[in-house]
Amino acid sequence: MEQSRPLDALNRARNKRVIVELKGGKQFIGSLNAFDIHINVVLDDAEERSNGEVVRKVGTVFIRGDTITIISTA
Amino acid sequence: MEQSRPLDALNRARNKRVIVELKGGKQFIGSLNAFDIHINVVLDDAEERSNGEVVRKVGTVFIRGDTITIISTA
Amino acid sequence: MEQSRPLDALNRARNKRVIVELKGGKQFIGSLNAFDIHINVVLDDAEERSNGEVVRKVGTVFIRGDTITIISTA
Amino acid sequence: MEQSRPLDALNRARNKRVIVELKGGKQFIGSLNAFDIHINVVLDDAEERSNGEVVRKVGTVFIRGDTITIISTA
Amino acid sequence: MEQSRPLDALNRARNKRVIVELKGGKQFIGSLNAFDIHINVVLDDAEERSNGEVVRKVGTVFIRGDTITIISTA
Amino acid sequence: MEQSRPLDALNRARNKRVIVELKGGKQFIGSLNAFDIHINVVLDDAEERSNGEVVRKVGTVFIRGDTITIISTA
Amino acid sequence: MEQSRPLDALNRARNKRVIVELKGGKQFIGSLNAFDIHINVVLDDAEERSNGEVVRKVGTVFIRGDTITIISTA
Repeated sequence: MEQSRPLDALNRARNKRVIVELKGGKQFIGSLNAFDIHINVVLDDAEERSNGEVVRKVGTVFIRGDTITIISTA
Repeated sequence: MEQSRPLDALNRARNKRVIVELKGGKQFIGSLNAFDIHINVVLDDAEERSNGEVVRKVGTVFIRGDTITIISTA
Repeated sequence: MEQSRPLDALNRARNKRVIVELKGGKQFIGSLNAFDIHINVVLDDAEERSNGEVVRKVGTVFIRGDTITIISTA
Repeated sequence: MEQSRPLDALNRARNKRVIVELKGGKQFIGSLNAFDIHINVVLDDAEERSNGEVVRKVGTVFIRGDTITIISTA
Repeated sequence: MEQSRPLDALNRARNKRVIVELKGGKQFIGSLNAFDIHINVVLDDAEERSNGEVVRKVGTVFIRGDTITIISTA
Repeated sequence: MEQSRPLDALNRARNKRVIVELKGGKQFIGSLNAFDIHINVVLDDAEERSNGEVVRKVGTVFIRGDTITIISTA
Repeated sequence: MEQSRPLDALNRARNKRVIVELKGGKQFIGSLNAFDIHINVVLDDAEERSNGEVVRKVGTVFIRGDTITIISTA
């Protein structure tokens, strides 16, 4: 039986809405369009949120993996 | 006799509940679904805790290895 | 069907105006001239902004990938 | 005569009690079960200490090398 | 048509005066003598500036890429 | 004539007493037992010092290279 | 015509007195004995300075590249 790998979980989340949290505390919510092994991520229809409130709409956003702490399903 | 390696310990913890602590002080507790050599980790049925209190349920969560300090059995 | 990758999104943004946000909180807005796998970025006709205000015009600017958090379309 | 290498010292400490200090100032004391070239470490029968006091027992703990500053014999 | 790369922009700036900004907020202005893929940079006839004022003349200065945030033309 | 390299200097310091300074400001003084290309270092008969005062004796200590700033002869 | 590279500038500074500045703000001045591609540096006859004042003499000192921001001629 093959063991599951962390990127499999991201793969299952493609085109679904995810929450991406950054080291500085920012949160982006959007549809997971793409990711790579560095965990660079692209979200579509994304918005930045703070304490559950929408701060701004950012459309498509590229997030550098190095700045990401966690990714969860929205 | 073969020496044990750190990832062996993570392997033994698969599908068991673990506590993952992050650099910023956050704690996630969940079932260890997957990990890789970068210590990227995926937890199922996960929740974020602070001082022993559940802060929120996050379902499946991907945690970037770079942000992790320790992983222990729950 | 081939999966899209994060750099594809940057490629589609070539010669379009993008907002690049840095770890220290600075923002640069300009035309995306070039990028590489380290997410080093070159913007043309760029300006630094703070709270929506132009701080200064910088013409062509090279931004080291390591310092970038997110890139979005302007 | 072959020069000794840093990992030789860790190898000699296998199954002995060691103190692992982390960047944030935390200390873990336990039996050195495993380590690798990234200095990822697994301790058995481990406890977290602060100022010589036991804060909590953690059983088996995986400590990410990146977060470790020093390892000494207990 | 070949896409331009970020180092092309640095190459065009060789022997021209550039402003190099560091993570700690320092600025160096000088003639771009050399750079490499790590974005290590050497400036000739360089000076350190703070708020538009010359702090000191440093002649030839080697700046480690890791500490650089942006490079723009002076 | 062959140029000298930084690790040559560490090699000449083997079995001599050295001062190792860490990013957080800590100092360890001991006999240089081993080092590697990551500048991971092992000191024997080591002690931690603060402002010239011995804080504690640590016997043999493994210091992760990543946390080291400078090494000088004691 | 071959382009000059950053390490050429360090090579020209061999056996000359240089100022090495560290991330934490410390300055070391000494004769450049050796360096490598990680910009690990060894200075001979070195002293630590603060605000132009000699803080202490350190003889030969190994400085880890990771901690260096700039190197200039003294």
